[in-house]
Amino acid sequence: MGTRERLVQTMSDLLWERGYADTSPREVRERSGVGQGSQYHHFASKRDLALAALRHNVDDVLPAADSLSGPGSPLARIEAYLLRPRDALRGCKVGRMTQDPQVREDPELLAVVSSAFTAMHTQWAHALTEAVTAGELRSDIDPEQVAHTLMAVLQGGYVLAMAQGDPAPFEQARQGALSLLRAAAPQTPESLTK
Amino acid sequence: MGTRERLVQTMSDLLWERGYADTSPREVRERSGVGQGSQYHHFASKRDLALAALRHNVDDVLPAADSLSGPGSPLARIEAYLLRPRDALRGCKVGRMTQDPQVREDPELLAVVSSAFTAMHTQWAHALTEAVTAGELRSDIDPEQVAHTLMAVLQGGYVLAMAQGDPAPFEQARQGALSLLRAAAPQTPESLTK
Repeated sequence: MGTRERLVQTMSDLLWERGYADTSPREVRERSGVGQGSQYHHFASKRDLALAALRHNVDDVLPAADSLSGPGSPLARIEAYLLRPRDALRGCKVGRMTQDPQVREDPELLAVVSSAFTAMHTQWAHALTEAVTAGELRSDIDPEQVAHTLMAVLQGGYVLAMAQGDPAPFEQARQGALSLLRAAAPQTPESLTK
Repeated sequence: MGTRERLVQTMSDLLWERGYADTSPREVRERSGVGQGSQYHHFASKRDLALAALRHNVDDVLPAADSLSGPGSPLARIEAYLLRPRDALRGCKVGRMTQDPQVREDPELLAVVSSAFTAMHTQWAHALTEAVTAGELRSDIDPEQVAHTLMAVLQGGYVLAMAQGDPAPFEQARQGALSLLRAAAPQTPESLTK
């Protein structure tokens, strides 16, 4: 790995672990083993390095959402993506950035976060629309709204898990979302007799 | 307001706005107008002040959840609390603390956050249990799980709103949760013909 890549990877890790405000250029140097002259040769500021690192984290996270598209049952894809193994106590590399006022106040940094969330929402909403069309979800379910609901369950589940230092609330939150989603399947007279 | 209260109130505001890592004792002094000697007379460290301020924020937030208890339809109480006016772009005073590694790594600070979330969960789960008992929600809905789901929708909705600099995703997330909750009402053969 070249020096530039080492700096970006280290900053990506530190943004995830500690956030932006709490990460100093010195910590990046110490962990990456890159010297100060070399660091500033590649990145004029902590903020420039953070921009590259944040883009790197988005590129790392977004492709997984491709599994929301594809053949077969849309609801099965939605359920599989919702229940995908996730490290609840580490949280979301991209979502945690929103909690950093220095990121929120920097239009260029925030734009990376917001476009990642928009791309995720498009994927979720598309799969939910397919599920409604396929008759797997009731027709009064709004895919745009429920896409935000399910994204919020994951992002908020991390908050609950971190608050307790325990992944259980995250798991419960998404199991509860799954049970609500299943309750939103169209009911037939036959299904009532079960 | 006395000096001590002024320090606590100012730190409470700064914890909400900027978090723990990004708030310096100097900022607290500048905003509160309290001098350095007086600050250290009341609080030996930034961390001691943060502990008092975090407790203050919990005391400020928790009483609202009392509206989950009371007379009348449990589901109506749940819906009202879910849809209660909230400033999505400011987020949750208590939940945002989980994003600060310095808080997560401090057992005493984290204990304040985790006990607040436990208290909230108890209130949600109690109301959801009442809704199941009253026949307003299907009997296969797990109140403990769905309590975490609805808490996550709110906490995660703030993340989505902050990512876009727009309260709309928060509103959509909770409207979507509401529609799923309504879909989890027991269906009668009569309701199918509607």
